[in-house]
Amino acid sequence: MKFSPLLSELVSALTCLPGVGNKSAQRMAFHLLERNREGALKLSSVLHNAMEHIRHCSRCRTFTEQPVCDICQHPQRQDSGLLCIVESPQDVLAIEQTSTFNGTYFVLMGHLSPIDGIGPQEIGLDELEQRFRSESIQEVILATNPTVEGEATAHYIAQLCNKYHIEASRIAHGVPVGGELEYIDGNTLTHAFSGRRKL
Amino acid sequence: MKFSPLLSELVSALTCLPGVGNKSAQRMAFHLLERNREGALKLSSVLHNAMEHIRHCSRCRTFTEQPVCDICQHPQRQDSGLLCIVESPQDVLAIEQTSTFNGTYFVLMGHLSPIDGIGPQEIGLDELEQRFRSESIQEVILATNPTVEGEATAHYIAQLCNKYHIEASRIAHGVPVGGELEYIDGNTLTHAFSGRRKL
Ligand SMILES: [Zn+2]
Ligand SMILES: [Zn+2]
Repeated sequence: MKFSPLLSELVSALTCLPGVGNKSAQRMAFHLLERNREGALKLSSVLHNAMEHIRHCSRCRTFTEQPVCDICQHPQRQDSGLLCIVESPQDVLAIEQTSTFNGTYFVLMGHLSPIDGIGPQEIGLDELEQRFRSESIQEVILATNPTVEGEATAHYIAQLCNKYHIEASRIAHGVPVGGELEYIDGNTLTHAFSGRRKL
Repeated sequence: MKFSPLLSELVSALTCLPGVGNKSAQRMAFHLLERNREGALKLSSVLHNAMEHIRHCSRCRTFTEQPVCDICQHPQRQDSGLLCIVESPQDVLAIEQTSTFNGTYFVLMGHLSPIDGIGPQEIGLDELEQRFRSESIQEVILATNPTVEGEATAHYIAQLCNKYHIEASRIAHGVPVGGELEYIDGNTLTHAFSGRRKL
């Protein structure tokens, strides 16, 4: 932009946001300059703080600015004996929003993918084994994604649980509540049938 | 977010961006933390600089971090005797991208809207008159939007030009190049007919 190199820089910096191309970045830059400089300054400072201070919880590996996150520090959750294993912090958030789970988590930050050089160590399984050894865990709930890699990862961790005589379970896959049968893909339908329960 | 108040703060700060609701802000925050902390830190610093340093050009009122923008400082543009009047800096950008205009601009930062208390002074018309007096302007091109307010503003400024014996012209409105007649709204079609030229 001839009239403001700094504005060009701002537009280009905004494209680091996912789903934001040049055109929306332009719209955002003008909007902030014209109508919300205060919000933009606030965003600038929070962005900086978040990137500098948010690391991984030393216990469950989710994102947190504390050494150990609040979920891991919660006494009742620690005593529950339930450990839920997920692929990402977003999954923790999704589960927390349902308020159905009251145990602790372990976040793999990915899944096993030998072809990409992601083995057990890269997804923190030695740290997980450490927890198996030091905590009294009754049940491990495997909530990895229902993808090929997610299933393989769940299977691998289930074997690990076996070694430590810890019960392992997999979350149920099937027809989503409110979903219409005719629109569900075949794979999910197969899961729904094989996972059927007596009424 | 129980596991990270700072992450909640980041999500909420990101919603200052136009078109970004809670859900996309969440997606953005996780994306930056997981995959692009460097880009986020860069964005934080550019945002801060832009909001602190980008003000209005003292001559044309467009956004710039200099006292007078590069367009206004350009000798050939100054000598052109052409002054284009637009409502916003985005309009300057759109016109500059076509490379069809080689004069200078005046940015109203809005349009006349008596009902909202926006009169001639609020859109900088005394500064504009100052330029009419001090510069040798041959023609003022009125490129305000083809809305009721934009037309009224163009009309008002045309009268001002008249007072200073400066020629005023209005950009043509009609069927967009490549546009199909059947999809053009009636108002535009009316403009296209009344603005017809002999071939
Ligand atoms: Zn934790
Ligand atoms: Zn200027």
